[in-house]
Amino acid sequence: MVLVRQEIGDVLRDFRLQKGRTLRQVAGDASVALGYLSEVERGQKEASSEILAAVADALDTPLSVIMSEVSDRLAVIEGLSVPLSGHVPDTVPAELVSGYRSELLAQR
Amino acid sequence: MVLVRQEIGDVLRDFRLQKGRTLRQVAGDASVALGYLSEVERGQKEASSEILAAVADALDTPLSVIMSEVSDRLAVIEGLSVPLSGHVPDTVPAELVSGYRSELLAQR
Repeated sequence: MVLVRQEIGDVLRDFRLQKGRTLRQVAGDASVALGYLSEVERGQKEASSEILAAVADALDTPLSVIMSEVSDRLAVIEGLSVPLSGHVPDTVPAELVSGYRSELLAQR
Repeated sequence: MVLVRQEIGDVLRDFRLQKGRTLRQVAGDASVALGYLSEVERGQKEASSEILAAVADALDTPLSVIMSEVSDRLAVIEGLSVPLSGHVPDTVPAELVSGYRSELLAQR
């Protein structure tokens, strides 16, 4: 069973690390107990909507951005999207390929 | 304060209505108490990840699709996106417009 709290926890931790902030700093800014935030990040506790809003605010990241990232990761787990390669089309328009070939030839 | 449970509730109700299903049917399929699901839909109760997964399954809708819709609505509330008009480009390619005009003329 796919659990949303696991992905929310991973995303919150990744955003925190991206911003170079410690668990203690974010917990302090969000007025959340450090142990609680740690459990949320590990997917062991459900974060209430109020806690989520406070942590998003402490991370200076809109909730919509956090939930969008959660959705993207869920899609990968659900097999609806492939990371990275999912953004590359299967076929490349012919004019793009020939243009690229001309460029390669021109570089010789 | 923007509350995620409010948007999750709205999205779950909208998907249920889109599929023409009653609260009783979805609650039954998800093995969730009807009153509880009703409170979740109205944003009055936080749905646990297990409940969310069961309701998504009962609605035959991937969790990623539900959370993507939640994210979109949060973005509108957060002023990061404008509904509908946000998806329409400012300019339409000329060939698209003329193609559409030809179709309209052909239908006369």
